[in-house]
Amino acid sequence: MDLIGEIKKRSVRVDKGIEDYLPVSRPVELYKAARYLPDAGGKRLRPAIVILTAEAVGSEPEKVLPAAVAVELVHNFTLVHDDIMDRDDIRRGMPAVHVKWGEAGAILAGDTLYAKAFEIMTRAESDPANLLKCVDILSKTCRDICEGQWMDVEFEDRADVTEEEYLDMIEKKTGVLYAAACKIGAILGGASDETAETLYEFGRLIGIAFQIYDDVIDMITPEEILGKVRGSDLMEGKKTLIAIHALSNGLKLDIFGRGEASTEEINEAVRLLEESGSINYARDLAISYVTKGKSLLDVLEDSGSKDILLAIADYMIQRSH
Amino acid sequence: MDLIGEIKKRSVRVDKGIEDYLPVSRPVELYKAARYLPDAGGKRLRPAIVILTAEAVGSEPEKVLPAAVAVELVHNFTLVHDDIMDRDDIRRGMPAVHVKWGEAGAILAGDTLYAKAFEIMTRAESDPANLLKCVDILSKTCRDICEGQWMDVEFEDRADVTEEEYLDMIEKKTGVLYAAACKIGAILGGASDETAETLYEFGRLIGIAFQIYDDVIDMITPEEILGKVRGSDLMEGKKTLIAIHALSNGLKLDIFGRGEASTEEINEAVRLLEESGSINYARDLAISYVTKGKSLLDVLEDSGSKDILLAIADYMIQRSH
Repeated sequence: MDLIGEIKKRSVRVDKGIEDYLPVSRPVELYKAARYLPDAGGKRLRPAIVILTAEAVGSEPEKVLPAAVAVELVHNFTLVHDDIMDRDDIRRGMPAVHVKWGEAGAILAGDTLYAKAFEIMTRAESDPANLLKCVDILSKTCRDICEGQWMDVEFEDRADVTEEEYLDMIEKKTGVLYAAACKIGAILGGASDETAETLYEFGRLIGIAFQIYDDVIDMITPEEILGKVRGSDLMEGKKTLIAIHALSNGLKLDIFGRGEASTEEINEAVRLLEESGSINYARDLAISYVTKGKSLLDVLEDSGSKDILLAIADYMIQRSH
Repeated sequence: MDLIGEIKKRSVRVDKGIEDYLPVSRPVELYKAARYLPDAGGKRLRPAIVILTAEAVGSEPEKVLPAAVAVELVHNFTLVHDDIMDRDDIRRGMPAVHVKWGEAGAILAGDTLYAKAFEIMTRAESDPANLLKCVDILSKTCRDICEGQWMDVEFEDRADVTEEEYLDMIEKKTGVLYAAACKIGAILGGASDETAETLYEFGRLIGIAFQIYDDVIDMITPEEILGKVRGSDLMEGKKTLIAIHALSNGLKLDIFGRGEASTEEINEAVRLLEESGSINYARDLAISYVTKGKSLLDVLEDSGSKDILLAIADYMIQRSH
């Protein structure tokens, strides 16, 4: 299957949807700031999943397009605000919103995306009761994401983060939006509550796997593909699953949290993490989440859209960056 | 009428509603940061108006309590983020959220209030179609507020702000949330669309009057009542309606935007603004908005709640701080 091509078919609709539902109106500069990140692209995995789950339960993609756009805008809103908090100045290869429009501009651009997401969600084609359910899911998801980001920031100053806490954090920071994308697509597509709930769980699991595998990629991917120095998580002292596993097994990593290291030192640290089984531990856990997630899709009848959802699940742990 | 007492009757319900609908859960520190400003009090005018409009169209206050809480949380969310942007370190006589929890903490506390507002709104007692209308109003209102705040920040660097632009800015920054409070209370209270729309306009007008009168208060209120130096807007070079009127009439104000001035210089500037009619111009405009707004309440049958709404309209231009 041409997974990228299948996602592209949906993402062109999403691109068009963003233009239609979030036009650059006045004050022009605010809307330029709000549109900047959505227009910069990204994989559009989350909105594609909204459309694919709706298709998989027998609905037309057009009906759920506003909901797909809403989910993508929520994702972008979190990136804009997270970049301010994390002092990340580069996003999607470009200066972050707060670099271009200042911090006040970025706070407001994020808040605008947030408001627009809810406004656009109510425009999907469905009865009010279903739309209200989706608003409820979206608001709870946003609240979860805030909790996850808070935990992420808090973990920076703590040396005793447990695996359980880490998994709870990435579930909230990343898992729930994938989960919401699945459930919203299912509900608006006309699925039963039970099917929608099962699809929520599918999304949650593959979302968690996505984040765990992100840590693995940082370790195993050569710099020329990764687009940044390999092992940067280690140097920053990030409490990834790999680091938590290694530290709890008594591994001593000289470069952990040291801010910088030579290529040789990084290679040596990665070798130690291979040897201790920490990288494999994370990889295996990500695979197990995906395997569990895929099995849940038995709830769907066979279809091309279901196959694409299965392929997306695999993609979470097979991508190179 | 004991207006303060009547508002208090409703605000104690709102206080209780905030506790019930926004409990301090985990991560505890995030929810403490989110609850900090709502718990610090404030007049609770907006949620009281949600309850009063519902009462005035014949509904029970309890049914709209979640919506009243939602409106109050949106108000608090905007204060938390605005204080970061405006570098205001004191709010309600206490250190601002970003002073206590840092900027990242304040961004997330605001985002959490935002998400919770939508989540809580869906819990009001009404049919899904009405609740969806209210979600739509709330999201559009949040977007308007972002636009208003953007304009306010933008005006700081512009010398040529017109009266029209100023009125547009305060309508969005302040007017629309009062308007939304009225319309949401009316819809959930069971009013017709036409009545709800008329009440929206009532709220918009008294909200604009509230903001214009704020500028007047800054000029005419002695420091001991105001709690800050009289004429601070002038020294900060704020483009208030009074300043716009004065400058467009060729008045030269030495202290405008100078950052500091002696009491004598401030008194002299205020005297000039009295003489030029600029203060009266703003006061009269605020009064005309309130008068127009009050006349719109003819759409309501006579009731105690209607009388309180009329008294709130007068309060907008009679308060001393």
